[in-house]
Amino acid sequence: MNLSPAVTELIRALCCMPGIGPKSAQRIAFHLLERDRHGGELMTDALKFALENVGHCSCCRMLTEQDICDVCSSEKRDSSLLCVVESPADVAALESSASYSGRYFVLNGRLSPLDGIGPEDIGLDVLQTRLQDDQLKEVILATNPTLEGEATASYIAMMVEKRALACSRIAYGVSVGGELEYADGSTLSHALSGRRPV
Amino acid sequence: MNLSPAVTELIRALCCMPGIGPKSAQRIAFHLLERDRHGGELMTDALKFALENVGHCSCCRMLTEQDICDVCSSEKRDSSLLCVVESPADVAALESSASYSGRYFVLNGRLSPLDGIGPEDIGLDVLQTRLQDDQLKEVILATNPTLEGEATASYIAMMVEKRALACSRIAYGVSVGGELEYADGSTLSHALSGRRPV
Ligand SMILES: [Zn+2]
Ligand SMILES: [Zn+2]
Repeated sequence: MNLSPAVTELIRALCCMPGIGPKSAQRIAFHLLERDRHGGELMTDALKFALENVGHCSCCRMLTEQDICDVCSSEKRDSSLLCVVESPADVAALESSASYSGRYFVLNGRLSPLDGIGPEDIGLDVLQTRLQDDQLKEVILATNPTLEGEATASYIAMMVEKRALACSRIAYGVSVGGELEYADGSTLSHALSGRRPV
Repeated sequence: MNLSPAVTELIRALCCMPGIGPKSAQRIAFHLLERDRHGGELMTDALKFALENVGHCSCCRMLTEQDICDVCSSEKRDSSLLCVVESPADVAALESSASYSGRYFVLNGRLSPLDGIGPEDIGLDVLQTRLQDDQLKEVILATNPTLEGEATASYIAMMVEKRALACSRIAYGVSVGGELEYADGSTLSHALSGRRPV
């Protein structure tokens, strides 16, 4: 291959994206350079801005460039419900199912002692503070039905129990071992309405 | 959906890439922001550099940040052969088939009078200059076997004829209507060796 250094480096960098191999990366690089430089500039600007400004909501740990995200600051959301999920993608999936109107808490990970991921690494100290909210009545555990997801849910269930709050586990219609992120809206809707006490 | 403006804008911008829909764009955005910020910075830097520096080789019109690309400046390439292709992706495909050692000319398009794309828009004035090279003996037409690709090949064949040079059309083993870019190396190798005079 005799592509120029800048084009070669661009193709290599585009492979940082999940699901994009060298062949797709090359097609994307040629497309942006040949046919859509404006799109390429939009991408550069949006990515640069997001990398420099997007962090985690100090209240729910969702990805946001704001100190407090829109869901946390909205007065329309039900403050008696708190749904704990592993990732921002899970929040996005639940929001697009339009079957949940409570608050969220995003772990951005799961407990994994072997990998050195303990309670503070997934923000459970921040969650502890959230559990002291007087309006809160029920915590819905929506971690993934994997070994580590279940262990994380059990750990949080103990924290919730100490605060004498209701605690439920989302009812998974999705296959065990699957990922919440990829469930369709109707499955997610059933999973929420079929939740049972822990 | 309640994603923050910066994250929403990033997802929208990532959809500029061919083959990337909103769902994939969201997965990529979350991945880069949550798990691979270094990869995101590599992408931003590489894309910004490429957009600002990569243009077309003044000799063959291939994508490059150099004035003259590596293939054109290499003394190892056979200057008696000139292969005319529609896009940089076609050059990449032919190079990885390792069955061609001559020079290239990249049209970056094809004749399309209805879309207002005439000879100068695909660099045929630059090609005219290339045809005056004393070392050149044969022009290989490797435009795609589409209606516009064939019309472009016919037009260039007339230019080559006036210069009294040999002119051949690449032998396509690929299905008519298909794209050169996606042919495998062995198909491309056969197509090159089976070329016939126009
Ligand atoms: Zn928040
Ligand atoms: Zn060149």
